[in-house]
Amino acid sequence: MIYPSRLIEEAVNEISKLPGIGKKSALRLVLHLLKEPMHTTDKLCTALSKLRGQINYCEICHNISDHHICEICSSKHRDLSLVCVVEDMRDVIAIENTHQYNGLYHILGGVISPIERIGPAELNIESLLKRIADNSTIKEIILALSTTMEGDTTAYYITKKIKEQFSFITISTIARGVPLGGELEYADEITLGRSIVTRTTYQA
Amino acid sequence: MIYPSRLIEEAVNEISKLPGIGKKSALRLVLHLLKEPMHTTDKLCTALSKLRGQINYCEICHNISDHHICEICSSKHRDLSLVCVVEDMRDVIAIENTHQYNGLYHILGGVISPIERIGPAELNIESLLKRIADNSTIKEIILALSTTMEGDTTAYYITKKIKEQFSFITISTIARGVPLGGELEYADEITLGRSIVTRTTYQA
Repeated sequence: MIYPSRLIEEAVNEISKLPGIGKKSALRLVLHLLKEPMHTTDKLCTALSKLRGQINYCEICHNISDHHICEICSSKHRDLSLVCVVEDMRDVIAIENTHQYNGLYHILGGVISPIERIGPAELNIESLLKRIADNSTIKEIILALSTTMEGDTTAYYITKKIKEQFSFITISTIARGVPLGGELEYADEITLGRSIVTRTTYQA
Repeated sequence: MIYPSRLIEEAVNEISKLPGIGKKSALRLVLHLLKEPMHTTDKLCTALSKLRGQINYCEICHNISDHHICEICSSKHRDLSLVCVVEDMRDVIAIENTHQYNGLYHILGGVISPIERIGPAELNIESLLKRIADNSTIKEIILALSTTMEGDTTAYYITKKIKEQFSFITISTIARGVPLGGELEYADEITLGRSIVTRTTYQA
């Protein structure tokens, strides 16, 4: 593309490096910022610079945090016997927004993926094992990983590692089946098939 | 949404003010920036700040420019008799990328839209009329506006204004019809109907 200005070109190039934003969308964002008052851009840049410069990671669960220990890990109202293992911070936000879980978290920082050269050593798995060893309060590890090949591999690896060292720990995974509010005919065959096999018996 | 960090929340809020980016997409961008090295964020912020602080608008055509007169207006290789009237800078880039047009441009900065409170006074229409009055080289005005109600209203208004003052100027509009490479059965009825009415006769 030919741009009328070097400044536009530089801004478009930088914005289009972000995931899911192409050159055309980047140009639209740039034109939007130019139409808005100067302080819109200033506030955006300040927020991003502060974020990148001042962010901390919780030393216990590896979640992003304003302090050395995150709010969830330092809370006195959480169930210390439960640790939910998730891929990244977005999963924590998603689970927190359900208001159905009151335990702690452990953020892996990804899943095992040989194609992307992510092995167990690149993930926060060692620190999870250390955390279980150091905290006798932990009774159950809930694996809340994606239902993809990589997620399943990671879940299998973690389960094996925990079972080897800590036989007293319960390991569970989030329920899989037909989504609530979903119509059966639109559910994919694998999900539907599995939901029949792993059906839940009504409690009398 | 509950965020684990105030810095994340601020950054997500600022990013999600951009058009077409919601809170979830903003969070994805924020997490991407956190995974990337520090200088990615620095370069992005520098590009945006420089853009917003240093940008100029061409005094002739109102296009964004690094100088007071843009490259197109100051070029010696352009056809000074043609002025193509467009809505914004993106249209200039789109037309330039076709390599089919060698005239000049005039950027309106929008189209007449009573709903968005944009009247003729908010657009660069007066300066277009002045430009025609001052430059006797201009022979033809090409209207390249959107085929929407607002675009058509603006085209009608400009045509009327030019005809009132400069009867010698040719006014044209870009061809409308079935897109090249498009299959007839997928063209909408209005476009197809108009393309039959305004059919082109083959030159012998």
